[in-house]
Amino acid sequence: MTTTRRSLCLSAGVAAASPLASAADPPFTSIFEVFARRQSVRRYKPDNVPDEHIRQIINAARMPPTTMNQQPWKFLVVRDREKIGRMRARTFEIIEKRVEEAKAKNPPPDLEARFKAAREMTDGYFTAPVYVVVLVDKQCPYPDYALKNDGPLAAGYLMLAARALGYGTVYLTDGIPESVSREVLAIPDRYHRVCMTPIGIPDLWPEPKPKKDLKELIAYETL
Amino acid sequence: MTTTRRSLCLSAGVAAASPLASAADPPFTSIFEVFARRQSVRRYKPDNVPDEHIRQIINAARMPPTTMNQQPWKFLVVRDREKIGRMRARTFEIIEKRVEEAKAKNPPPDLEARFKAAREMTDGYFTAPVYVVVLVDKQCPYPDYALKNDGPLAAGYLMLAARALGYGTVYLTDGIPESVSREVLAIPDRYHRVCMTPIGIPDLWPEPKPKKDLKELIAYETL
Repeated sequence: MTTTRRSLCLSAGVAAASPLASAADPPFTSIFEVFARRQSVRRYKPDNVPDEHIRQIINAARMPPTTMNQQPWKFLVVRDREKIGRMRARTFEIIEKRVEEAKAKNPPPDLEARFKAAREMTDGYFTAPVYVVVLVDKQCPYPDYALKNDGPLAAGYLMLAARALGYGTVYLTDGIPESVSREVLAIPDRYHRVCMTPIGIPDLWPEPKPKKDLKELIAYETL
Repeated sequence: MTTTRRSLCLSAGVAAASPLASAADPPFTSIFEVFARRQSVRRYKPDNVPDEHIRQIINAARMPPTTMNQQPWKFLVVRDREKIGRMRARTFEIIEKRVEEAKAKNPPPDLEARFKAAREMTDGYFTAPVYVVVLVDKQCPYPDYALKNDGPLAAGYLMLAARALGYGTVYLTDGIPESVSREVLAIPDRYHRVCMTPIGIPDLWPEPKPKKDLKELIAYETL
């Protein structure tokens, strides 16, 4: 799927780079470039991400506004291949169960094609060398704000920081079901999972998705 | 309140700048600096923010991941002083009502001091030249994801983009109650308000808040 896509670096007119340089691609000249060149990455190279980079990424992820400075976050870093393999197996079990359920209920003609795509995507999610689970502690002073605001804000910063260092991420909610990560990683109930993301060098940077016209999204004074 | 605070620019060792330059302060050399130097700003100078900057900020705000590329956002830009004045008056009515309610119920000894601080903060919120209300459309394909993920992610990007251009913001939820903005700005029910933020040149950049040690927030393999 990804092999037919042109790299975003190339399409943006940046010189083609060696495999390693294309990973930790160029120092961005502006944060606006980082915004524009972050894409959801669904397949990774196995190359290691140094722990120093993970710490730098998580250090950035704790800087968004947080209600009354409560800082309710936990960032769970997972590299253990055995655990990653178990999450993969459990996620595939869930997909196959859904296939069987769908087959039993008057399935659409493209059912097989859809599940083939879902399997390929899921397979890609488990190719990264490292994962970060973004959690918020329900025992913080303002748990409702933590879930609604502090949590996703931190995840947004995390993805941008990773992109700035040349890594891909993808904001996974259903992609790796919460129940699977909770079970395999033994995440206590007191933590709410915001999302989890692989971090790694993309197999390829995907093409940017088509976007609505900016004018559709801005309103002045009234809706 | 803010006059006793040292500017973050100065404390970060950046040369003192003229009033205008301190606003649109230096081109950042790295996104990590932007993360670190965004602070919640609670009082603004009246200087204009050009519409070109507002568009650049909102253009960045629509670039986070969005479930199935649904892009459920609306960014409502408000500069009308009459509307801003009405939101201010309505917000103060709510505060004064809360003071009366608190007084009627065995109030704590520092009640007056607390409400003095709340009034000063609220007064500051209404000093900016322009406001952006971040909304998501409940009629999008995946409204639940829009509320939980797409919405706050866009607000996070928006604040970073504003900071990169030298402006302050503050992620307001209760600071300007949703009911107030909904009434004065005639926001239809189909839109969920994520937050609203003033955008402007800070009266002063606040000192960074004390933060937990990074080690408290990271866990490896298990919690």
